[in-house]
Amino acid sequence: MTLPACRSFLDQHPQAELILVGKAEALAPAAGWARCRLVEASEVVEMDDPVEIALRKKRDSSMRVAIQQVKRNAEGVSEADACVSAGNTGALMAVARYLLKTLEGIDRPAIASVMPNQHGHYTTMLDLGANVDCSAEHLLQFAVMGSALVSAVDGKEQPTVGLLNIGEEVIKGSETIKRAGELLRAASLAGHLNFHGNVEGNDIFKGTTDLVVCDGFVGNVALKTAEGLAGMITSFLKQEFTRTPLTKLVAMLAMPTLKRFSRRLDHRRFNGAALLGLRGLVFKSHGSADALAFENALNRAYDAARNRLLDRVHDRILETLQALPGAGQSAAQPEAPAARHAA
Amino acid sequence: MTLPACRSFLDQHPQAELILVGKAEALAPAAGWARCRLVEASEVVEMDDPVEIALRKKRDSSMRVAIQQVKRNAEGVSEADACVSAGNTGALMAVARYLLKTLEGIDRPAIASVMPNQHGHYTTMLDLGANVDCSAEHLLQFAVMGSALVSAVDGKEQPTVGLLNIGEEVIKGSETIKRAGELLRAASLAGHLNFHGNVEGNDIFKGTTDLVVCDGFVGNVALKTAEGLAGMITSFLKQEFTRTPLTKLVAMLAMPTLKRFSRRLDHRRFNGAALLGLRGLVFKSHGSADALAFENALNRAYDAARNRLLDRVHDRILETLQALPGAGQSAAQPEAPAARHAA
Repeated sequence: MTLPACRSFLDQHPQAELILVGKAEALAPAAGWARCRLVEASEVVEMDDPVEIALRKKRDSSMRVAIQQVKRNAEGVSEADACVSAGNTGALMAVARYLLKTLEGIDRPAIASVMPNQHGHYTTMLDLGANVDCSAEHLLQFAVMGSALVSAVDGKEQPTVGLLNIGEEVIKGSETIKRAGELLRAASLAGHLNFHGNVEGNDIFKGTTDLVVCDGFVGNVALKTAEGLAGMITSFLKQEFTRTPLTKLVAMLAMPTLKRFSRRLDHRRFNGAALLGLRGLVFKSHGSADALAFENALNRAYDAARNRLLDRVHDRILETLQALPGAGQSAAQPEAPAARHAA
Repeated sequence: MTLPACRSFLDQHPQAELILVGKAEALAPAAGWARCRLVEASEVVEMDDPVEIALRKKRDSSMRVAIQQVKRNAEGVSEADACVSAGNTGALMAVARYLLKTLEGIDRPAIASVMPNQHGHYTTMLDLGANVDCSAEHLLQFAVMGSALVSAVDGKEQPTVGLLNIGEEVIKGSETIKRAGELLRAASLAGHLNFHGNVEGNDIFKGTTDLVVCDGFVGNVALKTAEGLAGMITSFLKQEFTRTPLTKLVAMLAMPTLKRFSRRLDHRRFNGAALLGLRGLVFKSHGSADALAFENALNRAYDAARNRLLDRVHDRILETLQALPGAGQSAAQPEAPAARHAA
């Protein structure tokens, strides 16, 4: 699936160059492609490899060598502007964090992706599973990184930010969420964020805000719940339209309409999650992506690189931390790990 | 909406009796109904009333008087076997907890409801929003209460239990979730639960387990996310089928199929959440329920009362706590409040 997606991507973007990393036999079909360099790696991180194996044993894995391509040298120059992988998410995050390190002011990288919304556009959401426990300061960092992502990829300079909660009122939620709300409001008043306030699960699909911020546990549950429900609804619709010869006939007549409908929900169009907060751009494609889905992940990475996502995240984080010294004091919060960004 | 639902409920259940509680003018149309007693209350808790108002000011509210009907006296006798309200959830939980108190062995009551699943059946889930922060011990209590609910209402003696997590492996999730997994496994080994293991958001709709256990924050986000996505999908389907005169014609032909489809997802069929862990049965209907939805909430409460849900929860909790002394030691866990059920 990867090679046809790469071929189509190169055809669509005459300015783009690709570096393909993998085992020699996997790369062979791409030999001789213009604007495409092949880099061999002798190993592959498997989907069920523990993080430790990916980090310590497989030192010549395609994943590791690919991430190495985006590592900047002392002069700030790297071989590639972004890396895209459809591999093991946990391993990808761990290897990327180990090799690239986090940006100044960021305690933990987060995974951001998009979901379709009622406006026919999409809602960006993070974190989707990299961090199970988050402090209020982490949620603020996610909001800043996510805003940079939306502004880079969608061109909205001041995307609206919602804090995922179980009610709209400021008194709702856990202590961490309430404190995150305070930090986000302060950042918004200082002009560094466009904070809308609390949002609920249904607001993701209403498109109430451009960005929805939450911890990785809640985000992952919301994402998987949505995938599960979409799958069930699709299968119910199929069952009803294939129930009898008559319904099958009606289904044939309704086919163009049903196809338009299912295209609007097609998760392949939303493939390509950003690993934000690292000193390099890394994008994660769904492991079961087909060529169309993988090409979308390549497009998202390409757009992010062209629009200088890395510099934007870097600049926004520094700006926010300088304006809000409290936001960097996570070392003073018992729930947060020692901060590496003491102002 | 309430009165037509009550009228239909009485007609459907010749053994049932209703006590209607409310303002005199609201009750007037039910005057003279057989098997129906009217109890006046001078006040009403509004949807936006703070919990404090419901608890301290409106002492003659219909909500409070209705809950009072299920409070047992010293001989263990109460006026009503269950209470159903479509009012303010926070106020209902607070007033019910204040008047009825929690069952022995239960630290916090939880809200349980059902979602449709791919098997054409439904998955029971709790907590859906009563508790934002939960300890491992609370999650075990939810599992035990939820199992009692499923066995009472569905007649499954050993319902399977899933712990909502962000991966199936036991090493996934926060410390609280991992410890909850250990408690659930121990309770399962001792024969007090049928613990399947970790489940993910998509498993709710796959119907992997009969019961899904989670904290109230995660449960509420999952529920609202599902509601939001279902709403968006329905509106996309409508938009596509009303796009042109031709698609409208096809929609007319497809109407019986589309109706069967939407009936399978009809949230009214799943209305009626149980407030579990109290010394009395209280059910919550959705605030915007129509007559059909409210009648379903009445049916759920009636089934629970007939099947002795209260005694079942009580017995199961005691049984589990005796077998697993660790499960009652939440006072030893820093994240849990002082336990009232020290063995």
